[in-house]
Amino acid sequence: MSQYYSSLNGQLIDTTKHSGDLLQDRGLAYGHGLFESILLAKGELPLLVRHLVRLCGDAQKLGISIQPALIESYLNQFVEYLKSEAVISGVVKIVVTAGVGGRGYQSPQLIEPSVICSYSTLPEPIAVHRRDGIAVRYCYHRLPHQPALAGIKHLNRLDQVLARREWDCADYQDGLMFSDADQLIESISANVFFKNAAGDWLTPCLKVAGVSGVMRSVLLEEIFPACQIPVQVQVIDIDEVAQCQQLFVCNSIRGLMAINSVYNFKNRLVKILPVGQQTLMLGEKLVEKYPHYQ
Amino acid sequence: MSQYYSSLNGQLIDTTKHSGDLLQDRGLAYGHGLFESILLAKGELPLLVRHLVRLCGDAQKLGISIQPALIESYLNQFVEYLKSEAVISGVVKIVVTAGVGGRGYQSPQLIEPSVICSYSTLPEPIAVHRRDGIAVRYCYHRLPHQPALAGIKHLNRLDQVLARREWDCADYQDGLMFSDADQLIESISANVFFKNAAGDWLTPCLKVAGVSGVMRSVLLEEIFPACQIPVQVQVIDIDEVAQCQQLFVCNSIRGLMAINSVYNFKNRLVKILPVGQQTLMLGEKLVEKYPHYQ
Repeated sequence: MSQYYSSLNGQLIDTTKHSGDLLQDRGLAYGHGLFESILLAKGELPLLVRHLVRLCGDAQKLGISIQPALIESYLNQFVEYLKSEAVISGVVKIVVTAGVGGRGYQSPQLIEPSVICSYSTLPEPIAVHRRDGIAVRYCYHRLPHQPALAGIKHLNRLDQVLARREWDCADYQDGLMFSDADQLIESISANVFFKNAAGDWLTPCLKVAGVSGVMRSVLLEEIFPACQIPVQVQVIDIDEVAQCQQLFVCNSIRGLMAINSVYNFKNRLVKILPVGQQTLMLGEKLVEKYPHYQ
Repeated sequence: MSQYYSSLNGQLIDTTKHSGDLLQDRGLAYGHGLFESILLAKGELPLLVRHLVRLCGDAQKLGISIQPALIESYLNQFVEYLKSEAVISGVVKIVVTAGVGGRGYQSPQLIEPSVICSYSTLPEPIAVHRRDGIAVRYCYHRLPHQPALAGIKHLNRLDQVLARREWDCADYQDGLMFSDADQLIESISANVFFKNAAGDWLTPCLKVAGVSGVMRSVLLEEIFPACQIPVQVQVIDIDEVAQCQQLFVCNSIRGLMAINSVYNFKNRLVKILPVGQQTLMLGEKLVEKYPHYQ
């Protein structure tokens, strides 16, 4: 064992103690880890299986070997504890990192992942936004082309942090993010679906950038088919956004949220969109199948 | 205040306690932070001023407001403590994160950065590598084009982690990293300089990717001029690497290390390089100016 010492904000830390460990964690050092934000509603985690499947699949891509049963038991214990404190709705976030150790960027041969569960209250007036829709803004900050990391909900999130710093008012509830090649990828914290000028429903291809969201997969695999509305995954140019007929964002916390107005990079209004009939139908079908998103 | 609960590896954590805080830190959640790896030699941090200047400059770009004097005092206290434990050489790493808080990607208005100092022993047989040079390998994993983050030593380091996972033997001591456009950017943990076929010394331009290293700036601003060897920063094509006459990597821990052999993506030997006269001269000048790199 090599020597190790550390301090946090000027105070020496006993790293043999619980959570002092986090100081040496590869999640903090390099963002070598993943997370899931899971809706807690009526004491349940309605999309738990999908979250676990994504987490375990993506962990492999980052060289993190996790035991799904262990992760699930930590989550279930945590939710039981919350319920014992009469906490039954909000957001349960799980962070799984590569764990503690390694020399520089190299992971050690034997390493145990760190699993952090945390709870916080719902982030926004979701009911109002679900009813009235939200305003979004184009972000200047571009998402880089990185096929090796595209789709993964990893801990390297400076792109989202910097994009979210572009405004500090309450005028916009989310921002649309584009690639260097001026293609729509996602919003800062959700995936995007829209009905183009020709009447086709589309959602951006995420092969070179973006996060492949759990709610996006629910919509693609269950909700669009149940509504008998065709939808395609494809590369989408920025110009198509300004011409769309309907537009919504979705994630596993907010469900489906219509976009009622779009502002460009210069904060100029590009488009006002009444909440469309098909957007309403998709939202209702989601609630019918998953009443927790009511 | 919203409610907050958390667990680490199945154990509930009292987040009011010291370092329980790290569970909610933006450094862990998003990689919203920076780090410096600083050489500790004979109880001193020889390049401290350059490290602090870079850290403070880059912090601004990430919206992290830090007080240089406070950071310096934490570092000095930490080094004094190490000396009191008879620890006088190794690596002192400082991590500065945006701190604890915020709703999702949005930083709160008021937030105190977290400052972590840690010590570890030197990572490798540096003396042998400095004398004999090292072997490097081309990495498959490409660095993304991201001008907004290029140059910054931030905590989003999955690219380096994934590149370092490409080999697990002791045959290579570092890997050369390229952009999507097949341009040489840096090595996994250092900057690169080389003498091309025409006899010109070059180092890659870091405007779209890469970390602008402290030792790189020492070489560009002090060591090359002191040796009266011209050097240029420019865009460098992958093909130029295979034709170079001399090649070395540098960082603030290892100093300057000649590369004696280069392997390609398929682990095939591309080039054997005897340690060149000018590489030796640059290394000697570095030690003359900064004897801690002896």
